[in-house]
Amino acid sequence: MRAEIISVGTELLLGEITDTNASFLAGQLPPLGIDLYWISQVGDNQARLVEVLQRAWERSDLTLVTGGLGPTEDDLTREAIAEMLGEKLAIESTLQREIEGFFARRDIKMSPSNIKQAALIPSAEAIHNIRGTAPGWWVERDGRILVAMPGPPAEMQHMWGEEILPRLHRRSAGAIILSKTFKTFGLPEATVGDLVSPLLSSANPTLGIYAKIDGVHLRLTAKARSQPEAEEMITRGEARVRSVLGEYIWGTDSETLEAVVGRLLTEKSLTLAVMEGYSGGLLATTITDVSGSSTYFRGGLIAYSDEVLIAYGVAPELISDYGIVSPEVVQAMARAARLSFGADIGISTSGVAGPNEIEGKPVGMVYIGVDNGRSQRVVKGNYPGDRIRLKRRTTTAALFEMRKTLASPD
Amino acid sequence: MRAEIISVGTELLLGEITDTNASFLAGQLPPLGIDLYWISQVGDNQARLVEVLQRAWERSDLTLVTGGLGPTEDDLTREAIAEMLGEKLAIESTLQREIEGFFARRDIKMSPSNIKQAALIPSAEAIHNIRGTAPGWWVERDGRILVAMPGPPAEMQHMWGEEILPRLHRRSAGAIILSKTFKTFGLPEATVGDLVSPLLSSANPTLGIYAKIDGVHLRLTAKARSQPEAEEMITRGEARVRSVLGEYIWGTDSETLEAVVGRLLTEKSLTLAVMEGYSGGLLATTITDVSGSSTYFRGGLIAYSDEVLIAYGVAPELISDYGIVSPEVVQAMARAARLSFGADIGISTSGVAGPNEIEGKPVGMVYIGVDNGRSQRVVKGNYPGDRIRLKRRTTTAALFEMRKTLASPD
Repeated sequence: MRAEIISVGTELLLGEITDTNASFLAGQLPPLGIDLYWISQVGDNQARLVEVLQRAWERSDLTLVTGGLGPTEDDLTREAIAEMLGEKLAIESTLQREIEGFFARRDIKMSPSNIKQAALIPSAEAIHNIRGTAPGWWVERDGRILVAMPGPPAEMQHMWGEEILPRLHRRSAGAIILSKTFKTFGLPEATVGDLVSPLLSSANPTLGIYAKIDGVHLRLTAKARSQPEAEEMITRGEARVRSVLGEYIWGTDSETLEAVVGRLLTEKSLTLAVMEGYSGGLLATTITDVSGSSTYFRGGLIAYSDEVLIAYGVAPELISDYGIVSPEVVQAMARAARLSFGADIGISTSGVAGPNEIEGKPVGMVYIGVDNGRSQRVVKGNYPGDRIRLKRRTTTAALFEMRKTLASPD
Repeated sequence: MRAEIISVGTELLLGEITDTNASFLAGQLPPLGIDLYWISQVGDNQARLVEVLQRAWERSDLTLVTGGLGPTEDDLTREAIAEMLGEKLAIESTLQREIEGFFARRDIKMSPSNIKQAALIPSAEAIHNIRGTAPGWWVERDGRILVAMPGPPAEMQHMWGEEILPRLHRRSAGAIILSKTFKTFGLPEATVGDLVSPLLSSANPTLGIYAKIDGVHLRLTAKARSQPEAEEMITRGEARVRSVLGEYIWGTDSETLEAVVGRLLTEKSLTLAVMEGYSGGLLATTITDVSGSSTYFRGGLIAYSDEVLIAYGVAPELISDYGIVSPEVVQAMARAARLSFGADIGISTSGVAGPNEIEGKPVGMVYIGVDNGRSQRVVKGNYPGDRIRLKRRTTTAALFEMRKTLASPD
């Protein structure tokens, strides 16, 4: 099956946004055995959109379109597909009621222009969108398929995963491609590359290395004629990857470090609290991004002044003797977090977020503390990058330390 | 001048990388008065590459190609351009010496395959690349221009800034394009569209509407023969946009809501503290993403249990009488934030993040409180989406309320 992706929106042509929808969808197709030959971006202009759709319809078996399904006058994807196929748009009353219901449930007045989102052509089936008002379209005619999805990435990805992917799965046949991603933290990309270098030259399975904000990821991909054969190749490759990188691997595939930590806490029936300087709330919000985190997360304190630290249990002498950015203070913060929220484990961060030095310590220096009541752990980091990357990096390091504490037999 | 961008590389079609080169270049063209109509991505396949280049050469005055200039066999951009134009490739000896020098200076052995990077066709002029071995191409024939640049973003951006941009500047025949973006919050996209509908049909300036996670953005773009003329068009358009959307507009262009709030706090010499239930730390981390926030942000508390709320100053009767997700409790939280951190203003959030209802209140219901010691404000929201989107939406709403409080004369 030969596929093509079209992303619609003048903002793409003005360089205001980067087309992450296309790369997301492109990455979804190889496991389906679908070959992607073309991607293009086109503005909110009906004539050009029709021309691009026409060419895709002629040369591709599957065309995936994102964007241009909104309620305003410059949202033209429905109109362009109708024109390209020579079909007429008509308002579908069930869809209209669904959209009206979406607004009614939220107690918001619906604008009359939202009605156009309920329009369909005879060859199109509406695809439910629980994240927004724009239904998707599944168009099938003359042995070809065209799928139109909303442009906002969260809406598109949800519709893709829940509705489009399962339909395409049922149609794909033949070659099986399986992948597994291993997520590491604590080693630079080049070191990871050196450690797995014998695997890098393998043609099947292949191993790719990607530096990400939460560490270095390795992606193992096997191609085989059957599922068991592909699985066997992945199992053997995984054993080799783990034999050299074992202790640095914190998760696989779509796992997040915060979800891994949450699972370990739940398994051990432990609770957690945080006290953040440096990371300014990012550690707490990352922990609470996990659904069900309220069962193990007790709370957090963001302390942006000495007085707040002292009021919440850090001894003033520690601050005056060692400074805020010190192993002593970060350790006292972890303990204070644990005690003041009545949690089993406390984590803390303290460092220099910039733009200026603190206490003669350079921007990027950070301490992380973990206290479980029986043992204390303090690690020091020194990260490059801007303020927001520093916070992200510190949060990842704190969760990685937390995972170590939880995984240890202690 | 009508332009087109082509990005070359199979990794783009596999979704391994996102095409940031295209969005970078797209953003560079409007100030040159160059209209970009098409962007496309194509793999390392000569036949398809020739086809895409051919179409671009026919319909566009300027074609910008990135990628495919490397030394390996799958780098085919030079070959494809030569085939498309019917010209012959030949090794250029000056270029060959330059590439050999690049390796000699770095004391690295040059691979014989690097020689192909010294190839040119008669219509092409080599463009110097100080960041790498692949020279760019400037091709000019029959009144059209085609520019080929290396794919690695650092090499491409350097070549663009130093070599290509100055050449295009000398040619751009005076047309000026100016844009201004207005960022709103609190109205659905369709309603914004209805309110500005008379402006949407204008051909110059144009007005585009985009739904974003931090609200609905409007982009006004004017094209004129001189800078003052374009500025005058933007000023008049801005007055019309503000006359209908004034109170909903919180910022322009690259401003963020957290930076706007930070600026207002700094101007008024006020300090801030937060108490978060629902938003779980996202409000604090968003506030502390702003460089210099430590001067006005005192701290924050993330309360994930009744006991924590009570320990930090919320009266237990309020919780038992009204429930955690109530105007009464969120108001008490804002006050407690202000008092316990010794700040001038307290903000709070409380709501149902899911997956389950709380106190019979549905997922997505949220209250936001703002307390400045003299007045209290509580707003209710009801947002669609998953946990992470809900947190983001609540944080935006809280900052928007904060901005209202700061902007009011009180």
